[in-house]
Amino acid sequence: MFPTIPGGVCAPRGFRSHGIACGIKIPGSTRLDLALIVSDSPCTAGGVFTQNRVSAAPVQLCRQHLAASENHRAIVANSGNANACTGGRGMQDARSMARLAASALGFQETEIFVASTGIIGMPLPLERLQAQFAALTAGLRPENSDSAAQAIMTSDTRPKQCAVQVDNVRIGGIAKGAGMICPDMATMLCFITTDAAVSKAELQTATRAAANRSFNRITIDGDTSTNDTVIVLANGSAGTVDPARFQAGLEQVMLELAHRIVRDGERVTKFVEVRVEGARSQEDALRVAQAVANSNLVKSSWNGNDPNWGRVIHAVGYAGAELDPGKIDIYFNDLPAALGGVSAPTPLDDLVAVASQPEFRIRIVLHLGEGCETMYSTDLSPEYVDFNRSEYAASLARDRQKGLA
Amino acid sequence: MFPTIPGGVCAPRGFRSHGIACGIKIPGSTRLDLALIVSDSPCTAGGVFTQNRVSAAPVQLCRQHLAASENHRAIVANSGNANACTGGRGMQDARSMARLAASALGFQETEIFVASTGIIGMPLPLERLQAQFAALTAGLRPENSDSAAQAIMTSDTRPKQCAVQVDNVRIGGIAKGAGMICPDMATMLCFITTDAAVSKAELQTATRAAANRSFNRITIDGDTSTNDTVIVLANGSAGTVDPARFQAGLEQVMLELAHRIVRDGERVTKFVEVRVEGARSQEDALRVAQAVANSNLVKSSWNGNDPNWGRVIHAVGYAGAELDPGKIDIYFNDLPAALGGVSAPTPLDDLVAVASQPEFRIRIVLHLGEGCETMYSTDLSPEYVDFNRSEYAASLARDRQKGLA
Repeated sequence: MFPTIPGGVCAPRGFRSHGIACGIKIPGSTRLDLALIVSDSPCTAGGVFTQNRVSAAPVQLCRQHLAASENHRAIVANSGNANACTGGRGMQDARSMARLAASALGFQETEIFVASTGIIGMPLPLERLQAQFAALTAGLRPENSDSAAQAIMTSDTRPKQCAVQVDNVRIGGIAKGAGMICPDMATMLCFITTDAAVSKAELQTATRAAANRSFNRITIDGDTSTNDTVIVLANGSAGTVDPARFQAGLEQVMLELAHRIVRDGERVTKFVEVRVEGARSQEDALRVAQAVANSNLVKSSWNGNDPNWGRVIHAVGYAGAELDPGKIDIYFNDLPAALGGVSAPTPLDDLVAVASQPEFRIRIVLHLGEGCETMYSTDLSPEYVDFNRSEYAASLARDRQKGLA
Repeated sequence: MFPTIPGGVCAPRGFRSHGIACGIKIPGSTRLDLALIVSDSPCTAGGVFTQNRVSAAPVQLCRQHLAASENHRAIVANSGNANACTGGRGMQDARSMARLAASALGFQETEIFVASTGIIGMPLPLERLQAQFAALTAGLRPENSDSAAQAIMTSDTRPKQCAVQVDNVRIGGIAKGAGMICPDMATMLCFITTDAAVSKAELQTATRAAANRSFNRITIDGDTSTNDTVIVLANGSAGTVDPARFQAGLEQVMLELAHRIVRDGERVTKFVEVRVEGARSQEDALRVAQAVANSNLVKSSWNGNDPNWGRVIHAVGYAGAELDPGKIDIYFNDLPAALGGVSAPTPLDDLVAVASQPEFRIRIVLHLGEGCETMYSTDLSPEYVDFNRSEYAASLARDRQKGLA
């Protein structure tokens, strides 16, 4: 573990950022909804994006810019509107966002990354971004990571920032995400900056590996959004660093931000680590961890402080992994709930005490090989469903149709 | 559609059944929890069972008996205890259940099917079954399908029976299931009888095909239980019938019972048909239908009367099917919500009116081929989670540990 430092995306040298309200979420509101992160010098970049086949326009544009340019300089992101399922106009709007930033900052359009999060299927109110863009760039400061972190929030209850010092270099990031979609608010976004000097190829490899071991290991509701985006900018101003230590630092920042997303999950009361050991393969271990971490019945039982190993083993059973049911051990923290596929003699009250904690670990040992994986999940609460059943989306859309927004 | 007739599993000639209370659910209670279905003459049989790798002892025993014997005579089933994750003792208990029925009825042990549904991981209280078994066989009547249907219920709010007349033969069934597990109550069970003369091989093929187009097309919570069982007994007393018409009648009975399971889903307020058309392949159509029918966010929106096509298309996107996002049409009943991947001009209030109905259809047209599939699903309600979060299972298990049960 590297020491943490303050400053979010501005902790690394040579980065400035800012976030402002331009009325995308609610016209005239003071809720921040437009963020900008800028490097004072050209950056290499790495990016990973949603695997959803219905990807939003800004995701498509980011993929194009990542491939088209060797130099990258800034990320502009809005909340309140995902610019997803918006057709040809959506792509034009995403390009316009990049052009706005490029022209205001004097960069090439392809040097700009664009991200959007919010309601799906509604055109982006571009004129509101345009009207406030000068104010956004005027506010760029090396101490303004916090306003940028706030401006990408949708249903998040708090901004998420993290930075670490790795020898001579720094790595910092901001992230948002609280449900994959909430009411219609799509997405996990994560923007990371570093002053390390890293080649583009190395940075892409490092970004993919770190995201795979952090954001791809968390689940709140099992839904994959149209807009998920992780972008890393490296401006090199602090020089080179040992690649393995850089990789470890990048993973530390991403994992910390990923955990904060889970802890801030919509109407979530528990943070649960699902660790699978002894699987025939790592793929099998991941299948089992994902099945357990995504089961509604398992997650409902956690919400009820219920150490329900029967639900856990039934999810293990349908995961599609190789199993010997008579060899499966299940632990709540260090207490065995099931051994060899049948009930363990641990007093139930002791298991209930573990399941009643706000954070605990389920450990599943399959005794078939060396495969090992961990997922980070949450409980499923009646309040989550109530939150997501709300007619907010419908009423919002209705208001927009009436021209209120 | 064949005409429906009364009588459930006793509608076909030569079948008797009964259900009684023997205190498995709650000692001393009058809640029925032990069922028996008997044919007066030897039957061929077909069966399909859970694909969960952690399968319960009675499921394993049914598979053995289906393979070992050409003649089948009876099904004995209990609710209140799933006899799952019970190790070697569980297998002995399942055999003892078969032996009880065989000895009471004068059949071979391998001629008996056994099914259990209820709490996972607790030993079956076999002595309670033994104490009441004479009363069970004494009550066998051709008019007692209803008590058998009641005796297999767990969290179901009503018994589920259905029978049809297909030319000279009859096909009748009972089923249970309301969540895959509730609190810990595992499972979908379906027992079907017919007086048609059908060879064992033909019956197995027909059973598999009919179950695939009925029970394998419904979802309440996406969880697959350890105990799912469909058994068909054919005693031939009404002679042969056209195979295609028999197949259609069997499917009609299974689909009707499957729909009743969905409508009786735990704390469910909506019955939603998810129909996918124009997929590149039938497999792709099923992937898309399953993704939409199982998405928590989609199901939460239905609970809120929200015609949220953005959530539908995002689930379409992660289904793993071949897609052209710009060609996707989404209808609520006959009203287009999205056309060509973007919002359709249908007034929102009209879509809300459809989504507010207790039953409606989502039709998703991909315009890539001929693949077509339908899933039947429900909304996800805060009450479902509240029901499944309850500490009932923990308190029940605690009571049992204290010797109360």
